[in-house]
Amino acid sequence: MMLGAHEAWARSKALDTEIKAWACLADEAGLPPAASGSGALAGAALGVKDVIDVAGMPTRSGSPATSSAPARWDASCVAQLRAAGAVPIGKTVTAEFAYVTPGGTRNPHNPAHTPGGSSSGSAAAVAAGMVDIALGTQTGGSMIRPAAFCGVVGFKPTFGRVHRLGMSVVCDSLDTIGWFSRTVEQSQAVAGALLPGEAAKEPSKDAPRVALLPCDAIGALSPAARQALDDCAARLRDHGAAVVSPALDADLEALLHIHAQTMHAELARGLLPVLHSAQAGLLSPALRGAIERGMDISHMEYVALQHARARLAGDWQARFGDIDFIITPSAPCEAPRGVQSTGSSIFNRVWSLLGWPALHLPTGRAENGLPVGVQWVARPDEDHALLGWARRLHPLVRRG
Amino acid sequence: MMLGAHEAWARSKALDTEIKAWACLADEAGLPPAASGSGALAGAALGVKDVIDVAGMPTRSGSPATSSAPARWDASCVAQLRAAGAVPIGKTVTAEFAYVTPGGTRNPHNPAHTPGGSSSGSAAAVAAGMVDIALGTQTGGSMIRPAAFCGVVGFKPTFGRVHRLGMSVVCDSLDTIGWFSRTVEQSQAVAGALLPGEAAKEPSKDAPRVALLPCDAIGALSPAARQALDDCAARLRDHGAAVVSPALDADLEALLHIHAQTMHAELARGLLPVLHSAQAGLLSPALRGAIERGMDISHMEYVALQHARARLAGDWQARFGDIDFIITPSAPCEAPRGVQSTGSSIFNRVWSLLGWPALHLPTGRAENGLPVGVQWVARPDEDHALLGWARRLHPLVRRG
Repeated sequence: MMLGAHEAWARSKALDTEIKAWACLADEAGLPPAASGSGALAGAALGVKDVIDVAGMPTRSGSPATSSAPARWDASCVAQLRAAGAVPIGKTVTAEFAYVTPGGTRNPHNPAHTPGGSSSGSAAAVAAGMVDIALGTQTGGSMIRPAAFCGVVGFKPTFGRVHRLGMSVVCDSLDTIGWFSRTVEQSQAVAGALLPGEAAKEPSKDAPRVALLPCDAIGALSPAARQALDDCAARLRDHGAAVVSPALDADLEALLHIHAQTMHAELARGLLPVLHSAQAGLLSPALRGAIERGMDISHMEYVALQHARARLAGDWQARFGDIDFIITPSAPCEAPRGVQSTGSSIFNRVWSLLGWPALHLPTGRAENGLPVGVQWVARPDEDHALLGWARRLHPLVRRG
Repeated sequence: MMLGAHEAWARSKALDTEIKAWACLADEAGLPPAASGSGALAGAALGVKDVIDVAGMPTRSGSPATSSAPARWDASCVAQLRAAGAVPIGKTVTAEFAYVTPGGTRNPHNPAHTPGGSSSGSAAAVAAGMVDIALGTQTGGSMIRPAAFCGVVGFKPTFGRVHRLGMSVVCDSLDTIGWFSRTVEQSQAVAGALLPGEAAKEPSKDAPRVALLPCDAIGALSPAARQALDDCAARLRDHGAAVVSPALDADLEALLHIHAQTMHAELARGLLPVLHSAQAGLLSPALRGAIERGMDISHMEYVALQHARARLAGDWQARFGDIDFIITPSAPCEAPRGVQSTGSSIFNRVWSLLGWPALHLPTGRAENGLPVGVQWVARPDEDHALLGWARRLHPLVRRG
């Protein structure tokens, strides 16, 4: 079931010439002997997005502007996974500062297509079987979108619950550490290590109460993405789930606006020191443009946006109080052709802004062979409950 | 009015043998020529707590476990102050990882006494006239307590508003960057740079509506601290302020409990990588004990505490909705004798937990010559309004 660090390393060496998932791979000699560890993740090969520190490896954040000096310590989340038995075998490619300029990783299902981003290497490494699990981060859609494009399970937990010490935080109120795996069970094992103290939850009833949120007001779906969402809803209904469809168009548009402004304001404040440094010329035009956009957002506007955000978050908690989980698109379409763009995060941003746990579940493939799936979302701190529902119902909603 | 970088540097060289405020002082040759800058803080000499990056200087966090490699970039807040004309002249002593084990700084008013902590060096450097302004951080009472003990203006803004990129965050939901100065006007100038986009606010009415919160349920006051609080309330009443005294004992005790558990849980998660590293033996017994205490707090308990915290924060916002500011003790007493402890943060922790802006205003001296003062607190994002009231009313409440 688990690859283990040595097989993972060997597969990485063999496959990465094409996939380009790795920013930095450990020396094989430094890996612990197979089956030497203990814990729930004993021996699991771990990839770590290159905005999160692993002791002894540099943290390059997808940018030549950063330092090549190795990190002194593991990030907290890496130390927690190591304590549970996982073995970090390298740092995975990220878009520049976890924003949008891609790092050249290719989609393992078709190398002419993007793996998504910004956690490109982590999603691709799991999809290609180069690691068992991988850490990523999400500010807009940087976990769920690459999980969708690469056809792996991706989980972004409730904001503020996985400690960020040792992560290069850029957007303080948005950046959230999450993880990729090939199965829901493995995602639960990681959750057990990073959100500890609670046994994996088994749902206490047979059929969930579900909200279907196609989000048509904010983005169009490809035929395959639409079908994946409709199929998922139909199969849950067949299973006995109560499926409701709340109307939230105005809120969605407001939340998207708040997300964009919040992200750009925080990005500008976070990257100001780089912009003022000798390395400023090494930033991409897209990132410079985003920083400039963020610098135009005044502190007063930022504060007003945060108050509107808090008000809407309260409204939504009340509105979804009796819902077990929401089903909504992960991405507007299958992984787009080309690796110059990482695709659209339009269906992920609202959940990043609210800080709600979100899970990508792969359900099958489109006619072009690329993966499709759906996003499941729950209220804050329902992380284990959401994963519990997914473990039980993933077989039901998976085609083929 | 401003010392300027060169005079500040010379005073630091002369005084620091006794005060020990500096962890690292810049080379004088590297300082810009006097009066070469522009901006609201042109030429202001800046001290930076040694948990916040300054390009070219190491960030040691008061611990030999950390790396001596220099930081590549300024922290965001340092870059923002530099852009406003301030000149960082060095890194100030902090308690170990901004917790409680002191770094040897002495109180400029009496070197046999503590300057408070954890932002010990920043408060002492401002009090001794070694810098104009200094950055600190607060998790419990690490800004307001040293401001009180050293008799300087200390301001901890609303949580989440000053970006933390380049700060060594340990307690993710608590750590807040703040600043020390000798006058409220200078504190407003820093606020103008770090919370920009809003002119310094002039109160729109003559007399404020004030809540007096002695917090007797959670801690006893020395006679001088009691007198400072009573005097402040009396002078505000004489000025026409409406002063109310809400009863909040049960809430205060609950908030203190939530703060302690939240801080220890986050401390343990944050410092786990150090505990698992080759440098673990370099941690103090106090910090090891705190980490162990934090490791006993389960994720479920942590989550429950955060929900209780959010509920109480909402209650308090409503309860204080018509109050311009709260007056409450900054510390239980004047700076205690000895430098083995940094004193008690009991009166500061609630505001750190709620994330409300808090200001220490020095009002005079106790019979032993040590400074006393009061803490003023406002609702979230009333930072500029609170500073505006303080600028107008500080002369009224200051004795002698």
